[in-house]
Amino acid sequence: MVAEIVSVGTELLLGQIVDSDAQYMGRLLAELGISHLRRQTVGDNLERLVETLRLALERSDIVITIGGLGPTEDDLTRIGIAQALGDELIVDLDYENQLKALFQARNLSWTLSQVRQAERPTSAELIANPNGTAPGLLCRSQGKFVIAMPGPPGEFRPMADGPVKETLAKLATGGVIRSRTLRICGLGEALVEEKVRQLLDSSNPTVAPYAHPAEVHLRVTAKAASTEEAEKLIEPVAQQIRNILGDAVYGENDVDLETATVQMLRSRGETVSVAESCTGGMLGERITSVSGASDVFPGGVISYSNDVKANLLGVNPETLRRFGAVSEACSREMAAGVRAKLGTTYGVSITGIAGPDGGTKEKPVGLVYVSVASDSGVETLENRFRGIRETIRRRSTQSALILLRRRLIAQG
Amino acid sequence: MVAEIVSVGTELLLGQIVDSDAQYMGRLLAELGISHLRRQTVGDNLERLVETLRLALERSDIVITIGGLGPTEDDLTRIGIAQALGDELIVDLDYENQLKALFQARNLSWTLSQVRQAERPTSAELIANPNGTAPGLLCRSQGKFVIAMPGPPGEFRPMADGPVKETLAKLATGGVIRSRTLRICGLGEALVEEKVRQLLDSSNPTVAPYAHPAEVHLRVTAKAASTEEAEKLIEPVAQQIRNILGDAVYGENDVDLETATVQMLRSRGETVSVAESCTGGMLGERITSVSGASDVFPGGVISYSNDVKANLLGVNPETLRRFGAVSEACSREMAAGVRAKLGTTYGVSITGIAGPDGGTKEKPVGLVYVSVASDSGVETLENRFRGIRETIRRRSTQSALILLRRRLIAQG
Repeated sequence: MVAEIVSVGTELLLGQIVDSDAQYMGRLLAELGISHLRRQTVGDNLERLVETLRLALERSDIVITIGGLGPTEDDLTRIGIAQALGDELIVDLDYENQLKALFQARNLSWTLSQVRQAERPTSAELIANPNGTAPGLLCRSQGKFVIAMPGPPGEFRPMADGPVKETLAKLATGGVIRSRTLRICGLGEALVEEKVRQLLDSSNPTVAPYAHPAEVHLRVTAKAASTEEAEKLIEPVAQQIRNILGDAVYGENDVDLETATVQMLRSRGETVSVAESCTGGMLGERITSVSGASDVFPGGVISYSNDVKANLLGVNPETLRRFGAVSEACSREMAAGVRAKLGTTYGVSITGIAGPDGGTKEKPVGLVYVSVASDSGVETLENRFRGIRETIRRRSTQSALILLRRRLIAQG
Repeated sequence: MVAEIVSVGTELLLGQIVDSDAQYMGRLLAELGISHLRRQTVGDNLERLVETLRLALERSDIVITIGGLGPTEDDLTRIGIAQALGDELIVDLDYENQLKALFQARNLSWTLSQVRQAERPTSAELIANPNGTAPGLLCRSQGKFVIAMPGPPGEFRPMADGPVKETLAKLATGGVIRSRTLRICGLGEALVEEKVRQLLDSSNPTVAPYAHPAEVHLRVTAKAASTEEAEKLIEPVAQQIRNILGDAVYGENDVDLETATVQMLRSRGETVSVAESCTGGMLGERITSVSGASDVFPGGVISYSNDVKANLLGVNPETLRRFGAVSEACSREMAAGVRAKLGTTYGVSITGIAGPDGGTKEKPVGLVYVSVASDSGVETLENRFRGIRETIRRRSTQSALILLRRRLIAQG
């Protein structure tokens, strides 16, 4: 089975938007094990759209179009597919009625152009779109498949992950495909790969590593006749990974490190405060990006200047004079200081040189200390990061969250 | 002149990366007024690459490839172009020597595969790549042009904006094209368009609006025989926009609102501190994303809980009891409190409900107060934002920066 994506929309060619839908679909096809050798992008022009679709139908088994399903005159995908397949374009009366009822219920005025969204090639069935008014299309014709999906990501993604993935999985395997992502922090990609090497050769489920800034994801994907059977294949491998990597596996699927940290603290009834120098608030921003963070996070101090470090956090001016603000000693006093000031279980600090200026031979750009204070003392990590200012700051917050997580686990 | 982009790389088809280069190039072509009707994406496979390039050469005047120029066996764009053009692939000895010298200077070991990067089709000249070891290619053959650029954005973008843009501008106009972006805050897109409507019809320079979260950009683009003449066409229109929109124009080109704010404060020898509730540090993070922010920003307080608002910022507990933390009164005391505590010229506060939970009928999700305190008193803005948590938080920091900017201008 060979699939080909056709992205439709002049706004893609003009560069007004990036084609994130095509990336998303590419990832889905890879996960399903369906070959995907070519992609075409074409504007809102019927002649070129039909030409593009004909070429795709000649050389691929499954043609997936994204975009061009709306109600305006620019939305040409339905008529384009009908012409490329030699089909007639007819109105699906059931869906027209459904759509009219929806407009009435929402008190929206009905215009003739809305009927376009109920049109379909004769060989097509509609794919429900619970997030919009334009349904998708699934056509079977002359041994080929054409799948059409709307472009807005809020409509496209649920349709891709839901009915389209299901259809493609059946075409590809006669069954279902399920994935689970294990998220790992504190270990580099090379080390993770080395530790789980024997699993990377497994074929069902497959295990694939993905590197992200300061974390690694292992994606476990199984093909099976049913969801239950797929889960039964995934579970022991996920367990094996957890056994090998231990606490480095911090979460699954969409649980990022800040979310995992907030959940952990909440389940223990503990709290954390932050003292940030070079990150200027980024760690607080990450923690509070988790809805409900207020249960565990009362706040912190952005101590960018030495005065604020001394006056608000109680860092000893002598420490600043002798060791400087970017030092293990200052980092420790910042963490202990914010913990005492805000009365939290843990105090986390970050101080370093994010660059591009301000580095010296002894203290180069990228030198960052993070500390965690608790009632069992203060623990510090010295980092030497590379990269631009943004990268160094991001990695600094990641390092602080990892150190906090380690302390939480150690305290049991 | 019709151009066609060919993006090369299996990682694009697998969805491992999004094709931001193609978007960037699309925007550049649009700006240059070059028609761009189709884009193809193909993996690292020679047969399909040649087929793709032949199709593009048949129907387009300029074929622009992105990716596949590195030194590995997967990098097939050079040989692919040579085959599609019926050219031989030869080693550019000048560049081979240059590359060898570079490797020696950097103390890197030379391997045979590196020579690949010095190969070119006979009809090609090299395009210098100051950010990497793989040069670009410019081929003129049979009345067609083929331009090849490396894929890593750090190498691609400078090459696209520099020599490639220059070449394309000559092809398109026989001259040069220059753009300037005016960045506008505090006015919606519709209002900006209304105010500058008569300029939007201008043809040289053109004026095009782009909407961003909480700001609008107007891009002024001129075609002329020389850079100086292009600038002469742009300058009066830019001036006209500034006359119409006044202080709403906060910066040009890459100067974002946080950078403009830091620059303004620095030139006045003034300072600012922040008190953040629902944004949890995001405003501090934005200000400190500007290198050298330490001149104007000593820090701030992340006052997520009421206790921190009272204890660190001196917000009156009675205010919190009577009006709640999300109130104009609390916002004012937070701004005045952080200003007094840190001894800065200005104190900026943010307090609101970022959602998705925590909203009530009187205080819905999206209600956000921002205040600026200075020696002439405290000014407050009440916002009612829509969107997800992330959007509301981002817009809150934007609103705070806009209010601060307004105060800076008012104080003259």
